[in-house]
Formats: sequence, structure tokens, C-alpha cells
Amino acid sequence: MSQSKNTNRRFVLANRPTGKPDADTFRLEESDIPEIKDGQMLLRSTYLSLDPYMRGRMNDSKSYAKPVEIGAVMTGQVVAEVVESQCDGFAQGDHVLAFSGWQDYAVSDGKNVINLGKDPKHPSWSLGILGMPGYTAYAGLTQIGAPKAGETVVVAAASGPVGATVGQIAKILGCRVVGVAGGAEKCAHVKDTLGFDACIDHKSKSFEDDLAAACPDGIDVYFENVGGRVLYGVLPLLNPFARVPVCGLVGWTNLDGLPEGPDHGPAIMATLVKMKVKMEGFIIYDSFPLSLYDTFSKEMGKWLEEGKVHYKEHIVDGLENTPDAFNDMLDGRNFGKTVVKF
Amino acid sequence: MSQSKNTNRRFVLANRPTGKPDADTFRLEESDIPEIKDGQMLLRSTYLSLDPYMRGRMNDSKSYAKPVEIGAVMTGQVVAEVVESQCDGFAQGDHVLAFSGWQDYAVSDGKNVINLGKDPKHPSWSLGILGMPGYTAYAGLTQIGAPKAGETVVVAAASGPVGATVGQIAKILGCRVVGVAGGAEKCAHVKDTLGFDACIDHKSKSFEDDLAAACPDGIDVYFENVGGRVLYGVLPLLNPFARVPVCGLVGWTNLDGLPEGPDHGPAIMATLVKMKVKMEGFIIYDSFPLSLYDTFSKEMGKWLEEGKVHYKEHIVDGLENTPDAFNDMLDGRNFGKTVVKF
Repeated sequence: MSQSKNTNRRFVLANRPTGKPDADTFRLEESDIPEIKDGQMLLRSTYLSLDPYMRGRMNDSKSYAKPVEIGAVMTGQVVAEVVESQCDGFAQGDHVLAFSGWQDYAVSDGKNVINLGKDPKHPSWSLGILGMPGYTAYAGLTQIGAPKAGETVVVAAASGPVGATVGQIAKILGCRVVGVAGGAEKCAHVKDTLGFDACIDHKSKSFEDDLAAACPDGIDVYFENVGGRVLYGVLPLLNPFARVPVCGLVGWTNLDGLPEGPDHGPAIMATLVKMKVKMEGFIIYDSFPLSLYDTFSKEMGKWLEEGKVHYKEHIVDGLENTPDAFNDMLDGRNFGKTVVKF
Repeated sequence: MSQSKNTNRRFVLANRPTGKPDADTFRLEESDIPEIKDGQMLLRSTYLSLDPYMRGRMNDSKSYAKPVEIGAVMTGQVVAEVVESQCDGFAQGDHVLAFSGWQDYAVSDGKNVINLGKDPKHPSWSLGILGMPGYTAYAGLTQIGAPKAGETVVVAAASGPVGATVGQIAKILGCRVVGVAGGAEKCAHVKDTLGFDACIDHKSKSFEDDLAAACPDGIDVYFENVGGRVLYGVLPLLNPFARVPVCGLVGWTNLDGLPEGPDHGPAIMATLVKMKVKMEGFIIYDSFPLSLYDTFSKEMGKWLEEGKVHYKEHIVDGLENTPDAFNDMLDGRNFGKTVVKF
């Protein structure tokens, strides 16, 4: 069943998953389309962004954001069209950026909603290169990684929306950029289309050696968003005073407790001391001053216009396919920024 | 046999240890006292500093400093008396700070030697509170930890020369300071004599719970110099935007390869992201501008004069006892800054 004018479909969190979300994790519910009151508007989603952070919201643990309640609609940012409005600043037909979650329709009072206008050129880009993932890449790389021209920058998940952007910005800044991605097709895209200097396949048996060969001068900045084998392969290559912005750990997303050893804790910590390395985690909307977002918007807009930055989306058709698309993304079976089209 | 006027005793590195240094690691050699040439001076050591970094120099691995060669004198900083001088700026009877290593006598050309004058008040303090360990504490805490008044600072190895200083400075800066040390005697010293707000025994079965109870508002700065159980107990208590200066890992010093699991790598990295934590390793003479040393010297000198900082030495008699004293220090059987007196 696809989006209709009479029914609201929504995915609610039915059970907290241990490990990977499965058939018991979400429940598809149907209801009438809600009515609006004065000061409200009705939004019909056109694109839903799927992002690794959502896995964390399914856990009931101390984290940077509140978990999704059992029975509540799964959280998520969407591009939506205003169906009906009694809300100042928003008119029927406007496209907006809102946190409606995994559902067709939502009522909003306009708070935290950004108006994209009647006819945005690439509405879904506001969920990616011009939105949260693009800003994450820009802020983490420039503010924590602080790469200098000539330095070597290694980017994990290089074909993903954040990694692809990090690497392209680092190229613009004059760095040697080495991506890490899963499989030959993604690596070819990263090298040939995105213009990285090299891209190493983390599924290869010789990953560690291949990475070392691609970084003859060591690694000055490692943009971390996967963890696991990639991180452990990077550690011995870090140069003195290297910087490691820690954006996410998608490779460890489904971990439930500590995995089997050996214990890499001592190797991580010893690298920090011996090489005088800085590792810093960040959450995009907490860690940086608001003024940085404007700088990002201007710079990225200019780069896109000049054709200096390439952007790839992985578009999935239909809300009903969201749970599968979410697991595909966690497992790296997407190719580009995952967006569900309604 | 003690120091003599005719013979130079010296410990050379006989074999690279795996794990803890043992009877095969060092060899005590005797030779004639070297003669000096024009531009040189003869130094007789009076105090030798023993420090955890020396264990790293025994390994033949990529590190921040060259390893000690097999057959070469073990490296180390000493306070020495000038026996005879043909070196500008140094006269017989002067006390100096030099890198003579684990031996009675050394010839020096004055390079990297600091003259402490004829009659320094506390010559051995230049190896501790007023020297490398004191400066390490000051720089790591103020430059990376950057604690604000009212924040909670946790200090590992709190009765050691670095930890004791870190905690006392943090108290002067208005923080709640919780030490971690091994055993009731050390903990009592840290609390009663050094003035920390609390000190937790890491040998206790309830260490993790005790630490949590002593940090009701979480941890804003963790000064890391041990690793292991202390680090893993600290991780879940770190507050958003916590800072972790990583100074050393004495608890892991004798590790040979990765220890058995579970793997704490994911827990370390996930804490960095979720809590937006910064971890930064440093090497005291590489990581900070030279001008900081002058600031430290002035501030620490003033604090000592005012009685605001207390300093404890663990003095071992005789060069012949150096190898045992070194292992005692790695295992935490020292109490205060370890110095060998000749």
C-alpha cells in the first residue's frame, strides 16, 4: 500500500532490539489523518532521511538524546509538503524540513521546521549534502580534524553521505585523501567520481597492508565513523599530533555489550600517548557554535554550484520498505545517502 | 659496593625484556672513571630519577624516542655534582641537572645541562615537583584538561609524583578532586596529606561502585596515567564534553601485544561520541610551547613556598638497587616520586 489521502501509515517502535533490528522491532500502524487546530499545519512527507543515529534511539541507555518510547513513532527528519496550514509563515504547497518521523502525515506547530519554499531545486538534498550529514562532515573535518594542505586524510565509510563529503572537502583543502569503503564498486565510485586519491576495500584480506601502502607518509587526520577493523588498521599509521574526529561507529552499531577480545583498549590509548594524538567525539548540533552552520551553508552551496562537490543518493521507494532500508544502511548495502521516497 | 672515587659503576641494557624487566635485563659493569678533555666536565651523580617512560625505551619499537641500544647505559635524568670542569658556565662543586643515565659518573659538554648552583635547597626536587613530573602534571591538566572551578577531576596514580601534583593543582583551581590509588595507606595520604576530596582504592572489589559514589556529578576531567581497570571504571562516568589528558599508561607498561578480551575498544570510542569527549595524548617536551615552562616554574615555586603543594619522595639508597626500585615503581610499590640516592 502506498501513501493515500485518507490514511496515515506510521512505523512505531514495538520492541527494543538487541543487536540488529528485526521483524519484531517495528510495527506498521494505520490511522486517520489528524486534524489541525489554529496555529498548526498538516505535513505530508515526501522524503524521509535514514541515518545511523536512529539505531541509538532504539536503545534505552544513557546517550546524547532521549530514546524513542515503546509504541511511539520512530524519529526521523523528512522533507514534507504543507497540505493545509493555520500556521504563520507556512502556506499550502510549501516544502519544509521537519522531524515528522517514519510516517506519512504529521501535525506541526512550525517549531524547528525550516521552510524550503514552493519549488526547491533538490528538496531531498536538504536531508543530505546541504543538511545534517553535510554539516556533520564539514564541521567535524574543519573544526576537529583541521587538516593542512599536503597532509594525509583517511575517511571511513567513504561512499556514505558523511564520508563522501569529508573527503571531497579535504581534497578542496589540498590534502591527500584516502577513502575506505566496502567492495570494488564503492571504491571505484569514491576514486573515480568523488576524486579521492585512493580508496581501500575494508572487506579485502589485505586491507591493513593496502591502507599502509596508500598512506606512505602516515595519516594526519582520520575521520572516524565506523570503528572496528578500519579503526584498528588506522591506529599504527597515525602520525605525531594526528587528529581523529569521532563522528560515529556504524560498524559497531548493533553491538550488545563488549565484543570478544583481544582487548584493543591498550592499543588505542598507547597510540594517543606515543603519537600525541587527539581523538574527539562530537554531536553535530551540540558541539559547534550556531554561526558555523551559516558558514557551511554558504561554502557548500558555492562548491555544489561550481561542481566541486558530487552528491549521490540511495533512494528507496515507499515507507513500507523503511525497516529493510534501515538495516541495509547499517550493513553498508546502500550506496550513497539513504532517503525513502513516499 | 657503594659509589667510589676510583670506579664507575653503570647499568647497561643487556637484553630487551618481554613484559617485566628481570635479572637478565640489566648488567652492572665497572670501569675506570673517564677523563675529561677541554670543553668537558666530569659529573658525579647524587640522585637518579626513575620514571615509567624508561620501560618504553627498553623496547625496540616505534615510539616517541629512540630505544636504548643493547649494551648502552640505561637512560635517565640525574642531579649531579661537578667534580672537575673545563666547561664554560660550570665550576667544581656546582650541582646540575643532566641526563647521565644509570651510572655514577659521566662526562658532559654542558649541552642540555641545567646548573642548579652551589647549594640548591632541595636538589632532588628538580627531578620531581619542580622538574619533569611536576611540569607534566601542570601542562597536561591546565592545557588539555582545562578544568573549571566546581568541576570534578579524577586523577589516576594519585600518590605518584604526577598524579599528586595534578590533584593539588586542581584543588587550587577550585575543583572537586577524586584520586585513585592502590591500597589504604596511599589513599589516606592522598586524602589527608594532599587534601583531595576523596581517594578510591583500585585494588578494592567495589572499585567501580566506590568511584561512582565519589563522583555524584560525574567526571569532567580524567587525568590518565594508568589505563586498565581505572580507565574502564571511569568511562561510564564521564560527563558531556569531558576532557581526558592521556599522560601515560603505567598499568599497561609491561604489556606484550594485545591482552585477552573482552574488547573495550568499542566502549572507549562510543563514550567519545555519546559524551562528546576529547582524549588527547601528550609528551611533555613536544606538546607545549617552551614559554609554558616558565609559567609553570613561577607558579609552582610560589605554591611550594606558600605551602599549598605538598611533595613526597620515595628515596632508594644506592645505584645497585635501581633495577628492583624500577620494578617496584611499575608495580606501584613505591610511595611518592622514586629517586635513587647515591
